[in-house]
Amino acid sequence: MRQAGRSLPEYRALKDRYTILELCRQPDLAVEVTLQPVRRLGVDAAILFSDIVVPLQGMGISLEIEAGVGPVIEHPIRAEDQVSSLRVLQPDPDVDYVLEAIKLLRKELRVPLIGFAGAPFTLASYLIEGGSSKNHTRTKAMMLGEPRAWDALMEVLSQSVLLYLRAQVEAGAQALQLFDSWVGHVAPATYERHVMPWVKKVFDGLRDLQVPTIHFGIVTGELLAHMSRTGADVMGVDWRVPLDEARRRIPQAMPVQGNLDPALCLAPWEVLAREATDVLERGGGRGHIFNLGHGVLPETDPGVLAALVELVHSWKVPV
Amino acid sequence: MRQAGRSLPEYRALKDRYTILELCRQPDLAVEVTLQPVRRLGVDAAILFSDIVVPLQGMGISLEIEAGVGPVIEHPIRAEDQVSSLRVLQPDPDVDYVLEAIKLLRKELRVPLIGFAGAPFTLASYLIEGGSSKNHTRTKAMMLGEPRAWDALMEVLSQSVLLYLRAQVEAGAQALQLFDSWVGHVAPATYERHVMPWVKKVFDGLRDLQVPTIHFGIVTGELLAHMSRTGADVMGVDWRVPLDEARRRIPQAMPVQGNLDPALCLAPWEVLAREATDVLERGGGRGHIFNLGHGVLPETDPGVLAALVELVHSWKVPV
Repeated sequence: MRQAGRSLPEYRALKDRYTILELCRQPDLAVEVTLQPVRRLGVDAAILFSDIVVPLQGMGISLEIEAGVGPVIEHPIRAEDQVSSLRVLQPDPDVDYVLEAIKLLRKELRVPLIGFAGAPFTLASYLIEGGSSKNHTRTKAMMLGEPRAWDALMEVLSQSVLLYLRAQVEAGAQALQLFDSWVGHVAPATYERHVMPWVKKVFDGLRDLQVPTIHFGIVTGELLAHMSRTGADVMGVDWRVPLDEARRRIPQAMPVQGNLDPALCLAPWEVLAREATDVLERGGGRGHIFNLGHGVLPETDPGVLAALVELVHSWKVPV
Repeated sequence: MRQAGRSLPEYRALKDRYTILELCRQPDLAVEVTLQPVRRLGVDAAILFSDIVVPLQGMGISLEIEAGVGPVIEHPIRAEDQVSSLRVLQPDPDVDYVLEAIKLLRKELRVPLIGFAGAPFTLASYLIEGGSSKNHTRTKAMMLGEPRAWDALMEVLSQSVLLYLRAQVEAGAQALQLFDSWVGHVAPATYERHVMPWVKKVFDGLRDLQVPTIHFGIVTGELLAHMSRTGADVMGVDWRVPLDEARRRIPQAMPVQGNLDPALCLAPWEVLAREATDVLERGGGRGHIFNLGHGVLPETDPGVLAALVELVHSWKVPV
């Protein structure tokens, strides 16, 4: 469950003392925040605490994460000469603190550790828009109107993401998740032409490491067919798409991850239990990693999340 | 093309002098704003200028539209006793200025006039959240956790929407569009249980008027099968779903409306022309109303929109 920490008082206590980027940059703190939901919830894997803009900062891009706003890029990338001044991430030393956190975590954890990165499109959108965006207008304008600048940007980002994920595995990450958070704003044909080749490049470059890879983005129902053919091992599914329908859109044998609507964790238990069971049934019992279909909402009761984990663990595949 | 006005200097000049609600409430101004894109763009129909919160204000709910924020409801509806204090809209006199604008428009227009309303779920979300919302968390919490309050709210809203749309037709509207702007945040099974019956009620209540009805919401790819069975005549399609794929999800003979990505209007003309032609081809030439797959982006060049209308008019169905 991504962002499970946001619902925990022990995480909020740390957030009162440190910024998100401070939590990411101090290995002992990143370790503590990664462990918090694992301790509380009884989940079967840990996901590294970090932020998807961390490798951008590592590349020397000046940015902040403003509370209630999200990432703010000091000098948004809007022109080809700005793109050509970008350099590829060198994980060590650029983000050595992430690698250090992973090494420490492997000593602490009894469940597998999932590393992650934002996908090239999503990182490009932050860089071009200067932060979060409603319509990703400037991003699409560059993608469609200045393909040379776009390709150069995607080249440096996909190389950086690949090196970043490889370094995470070398430090000890046992699985990887690639989040294309904003790619659901792209129509399928545009995705195929301007985004998919760069995602493929990342997954192709990871194959020799032989760690399982998961690919996910929200509002990606129409992109599942394409995203599932980028080389990822597991397809994460947004809560909007029933898992049995998702399976019809992707290769038959591909495992799926998901996809309970996070808002259901705020509903009465009997509603939550009914809908979680529906997700398990549609998942079909095999090749299914149960998860929420998006991040945990901050107002969620951690006790409910723990009960949900128990429900999933005690569920039996119907014979 | 919805919200085409936002791209027009003559609209922005009015926006400098009046608030959106003032433009909605003064019939001569609402008429002028409705006519502006029709004059410029050569479109085949006009869509009434108004705001979807107008009937809420007519019901006596205190609200503002804040620039850059959207609607702000003074006292959000969070408890059952607040719901029971709501009254059903009486279009005349509650929103008589809308009806007056429609009457004036019919005298001016040489193309058909489309009236519209927000659908019950979307209006409920504004009332419960107190404005726009990222996750519609409180709305879902009421829908799933307090079904009695939810049903009572949907009852008063669907009755109000129905009376509002009927009054628009009686005033002269020649077609109707029902926007469920935020319903794409609801999973299909939840939609079927808690939203669909109320939408059906609206369309059922309009049938005897024999005006064509269009139903639309963004991010509704997974809901198309359900939304197309609510009684609407035409299914509006978000730009994310290729129209040929949309047709596979809805009844075969149902006309579709859409669905060029509005961001493409900011791309070079050859890209826009290629993608618009792709939409026309996927639409199949019959039973297709060409439109954008969401509102016009404010930064759009009106000259490009006019050229797009010309492209659509000159397109020939391949034999």
